[in-house]
Amino acid sequence: MEKSIVNKDNQFCVKGFGASGDLINGKKLKEMDVVREKPKSDEVLIEVLYCGVCHSDIHQVNNDWKNTRYPCVPGHEIIGKIVEAGSEVSDFRKDQIVGVGCMIDSCQTCESCKNGEEQLCLGEYGATMTYNGYFNDPESDYNTFGGYSSHIVVNKEFLLTLPEKLELSSAAPILCAGITTYSPLKNAGIKEGSKVAIVGIGGLGHMGVQIAKAMGADVTAITTKEEKRDEALKLGAHQVIISNDKKDMEAHELAFDFILITIPTAFDINLYVPLLAVKGSLVTVGLLGEYDKPLNNMEVAKFNRSVGGSLIGGIKETQEVLDFCAEHGIAPEVEMLKIEDINDAFDQIKNEDVRFRYVIDMAK
Amino acid sequence: MEKSIVNKDNQFCVKGFGASGDLINGKKLKEMDVVREKPKSDEVLIEVLYCGVCHSDIHQVNNDWKNTRYPCVPGHEIIGKIVEAGSEVSDFRKDQIVGVGCMIDSCQTCESCKNGEEQLCLGEYGATMTYNGYFNDPESDYNTFGGYSSHIVVNKEFLLTLPEKLELSSAAPILCAGITTYSPLKNAGIKEGSKVAIVGIGGLGHMGVQIAKAMGADVTAITTKEEKRDEALKLGAHQVIISNDKKDMEAHELAFDFILITIPTAFDINLYVPLLAVKGSLVTVGLLGEYDKPLNNMEVAKFNRSVGGSLIGGIKETQEVLDFCAEHGIAPEVEMLKIEDINDAFDQIKNEDVRFRYVIDMAK
Repeated sequence: MEKSIVNKDNQFCVKGFGASGDLINGKKLKEMDVVREKPKSDEVLIEVLYCGVCHSDIHQVNNDWKNTRYPCVPGHEIIGKIVEAGSEVSDFRKDQIVGVGCMIDSCQTCESCKNGEEQLCLGEYGATMTYNGYFNDPESDYNTFGGYSSHIVVNKEFLLTLPEKLELSSAAPILCAGITTYSPLKNAGIKEGSKVAIVGIGGLGHMGVQIAKAMGADVTAITTKEEKRDEALKLGAHQVIISNDKKDMEAHELAFDFILITIPTAFDINLYVPLLAVKGSLVTVGLLGEYDKPLNNMEVAKFNRSVGGSLIGGIKETQEVLDFCAEHGIAPEVEMLKIEDINDAFDQIKNEDVRFRYVIDMAK
Repeated sequence: MEKSIVNKDNQFCVKGFGASGDLINGKKLKEMDVVREKPKSDEVLIEVLYCGVCHSDIHQVNNDWKNTRYPCVPGHEIIGKIVEAGSEVSDFRKDQIVGVGCMIDSCQTCESCKNGEEQLCLGEYGATMTYNGYFNDPESDYNTFGGYSSHIVVNKEFLLTLPEKLELSSAAPILCAGITTYSPLKNAGIKEGSKVAIVGIGGLGHMGVQIAKAMGADVTAITTKEEKRDEALKLGAHQVIISNDKKDMEAHELAFDFILITIPTAFDINLYVPLLAVKGSLVTVGLLGEYDKPLNNMEVAKFNRSVGGSLIGGIKETQEVLDFCAEHGIAPEVEMLKIEDINDAFDQIKNEDVRFRYVIDMAK
């Protein structure tokens, strides 16, 4: 275990799992001390109970976005218990179970923050992400460490209340996979009878199918994997298209008002544009980088379509999706995991060998 | 002059300029007979007075979209006089001056047509374009020939009324350049105070600047050419950005609610995405093909932006932009041309050496 040095009065160490950027015995993540700052008066200290394993965790550990500051301690789907609350914290109390998602702070003064869209914070450094949330300042050695650790410190404005109906052990993925799919579906105005396709039936997609269905949409699941057909139908899809079935794809040209794409790696966007109806729109949430091939504007323009992107959602909206899931009986399908097995879990996620989300049980 | 054979009772020949697909004495376009079908009871025969020269004419003659059926007679910005009206034509009369844009027919029964959006016609062959408007049927030798000819036959539903205030000799470009920029600006809800950028200050862009300004927007012109700065300001832009000035581009990140891109050839869309405000959208109207480079979804997603396309506009909306231009005193800036000089005009357009649209004076 890597020992960190606490060299400031306001710091303390907690246990966690993170990456140094090097492989240790062929593994990326290892047990390490995580240095945290003591909670300020508007912050709480949380004991992490459960933490979902998101594909972003893998991207960040692998430095896929070329912005990883090591050590990197992932985890932004956190369910935990408040063990210490600052003097200014009034809406939450010690011993309360709360959720923490992808952000732990933001400027809270810009137009986006005032609109409850902290993920679009226009402050100098944007929102402070739950992990790898350093300020874009080469002089600063600031960094944030996520939920793969025993404790985390969070600003009171970034705490989520967990509705009683939600099962604690499976709720964590709502905090990223849930909000990331809910926000664009809601912003697209999905309602009774909307024709929606969800592309990629993994951690995000399996939430997207359930949420779109609960909004009243006619949901089509699009996947590369025949073996996901039955699972997608069980989640609420009324039909499934296997994306390499060219004929079936062609048969669905102009079919969807809205397509949500959750594929987490580079792909050819031109395969999906023709499936959009007149004036239809498509939003990609999984890929944070370049598509595989240049977009062909002929297909976009000839039916006034659009290709968008979306990043998680604001805190108010995250509370909304937690409540929405409780109300509609939606729960992420999870496989529980011990933190010691996290490296294997990463491999299995990369091989799409998980149904549909791993959640680390930190108590174990 | 190429002689065509009229081999059906309902056909007749008119004079025109078109391309056979081969160079004749180094020139693409030459005088040729154009075979037309006699007007049916719901059609009119129009004597062409003026015809605008659109960049699409060049793309089509060059087979840039890999769909040109030769002979190709371009021209879809047509001002002409009705010389013969079918028995079912009641809203227009013989000797009336009318406009014809990019379409001369459509199914008129699908949802798009019923919505007055014939350009998005969902009929088997889509809308019938004014030129190269063949049906996608390899068995058919059907083709349409545009306004580079003495006469054209058009369905009564595709005729536009010219408001009295419009100058006939310069109105033609409203029928493509006008509607192509008006439609996406209107659909984006541009209004008093909207921050709009128009990229590419040519035939389309110079209309876009005037129209966005008349809608009340704060208009920025973005061009590669320093020498277009003063012209753009005169057209109503409140500022001009030279797109290869990296610093000025960076200084305008997050600045625009809406960006309309009129560049007619492949370009890197990623240069413009960062200029969009939070939730801003961008629409490309000039390019009907692939962008130069893959779109980077990081820049799109991180501020919930979108990248769209738009194709001309419907007939109702085309009438609307004619009326809008008359009301707001907007006119295309044109250079008049004799049809014999069309090959030189094509070269000058490709070299961006026109301010801002050539119009063929067919009477000459």
